[in-house]
Amino acid sequence: MIKKIEHIGIAVNNLEEATKTYEALLNVSPYKTETVEREGVKTVFFECGESKIELLGATREDSPVGKYLSKQKEGIHHIAFYVDDLQAEMRRLQKQGFQLLSEEPKAGADGKSIVFLHPKSNHGVLVELCEDQTQF
Amino acid sequence: MIKKIEHIGIAVNNLEEATKTYEALLNVSPYKTETVEREGVKTVFFECGESKIELLGATREDSPVGKYLSKQKEGIHHIAFYVDDLQAEMRRLQKQGFQLLSEEPKAGADGKSIVFLHPKSNHGVLVELCEDQTQF
Repeated sequence: MIKKIEHIGIAVNNLEEATKTYEALLNVSPYKTETVEREGVKTVFFECGESKIELLGATREDSPVGKYLSKQKEGIHHIAFYVDDLQAEMRRLQKQGFQLLSEEPKAGADGKSIVFLHPKSNHGVLVELCEDQTQF
Repeated sequence: MIKKIEHIGIAVNNLEEATKTYEALLNVSPYKTETVEREGVKTVFFECGESKIELLGATREDSPVGKYLSKQKEGIHHIAFYVDDLQAEMRRLQKQGFQLLSEEPKAGADGKSIVFLHPKSNHGVLVELCEDQTQF
């Protein structure tokens, strides 16, 4: 079951400048900075109510976020929903015709297991489903 | 003070189809459908934790959402933060150099007073600030 918006991912060209901007906008300091080398991404997290704002900077041009930023302007990259049972949600949504980008959950930033749904399933929105990581 | 993500606005080409998609994705029925004629937009709202997903369809091509969809692909249009004192937040952010799209709050959908910040202030993200409507 989808419980809440876990975070909004924003892809930015200059992570340092964007961190200053969102610190000023949200009037709060980031609670975590984390690099996920496998995905070639550096992330900065801000709390906002029960949700988070996640800034995404590319650590290399050929990473998913690097490729995204070479093709499109910086801005909102994805929306992540927190679910209480990721495997069950994956099965439920697959049955309804949503296209998952991986057959199994992957390890994401901030201690999460994640899976993405293809934007074409969701009227142009890259959707992530995530739950707290239990194993990897 | 920014309290939470109030909603994520998603601009879609076909509001009826998108409503079915997000009903299936979120596994919940919309709680409200509202047309804001002045803005040329029809909105469909879904609850998601303390936040909402707001689908935006254009009621005419020359409306803000209509123009957006004629230039860009459908997808996430804006992120709205709920604030406890809109005028105070507007002053705070203006002082810090954020560019507001209107000098005064406007009446938005779902009983809110709203103001937008220019995407160029926020690394490509159209940001809305909103509070519950007190007067108009």
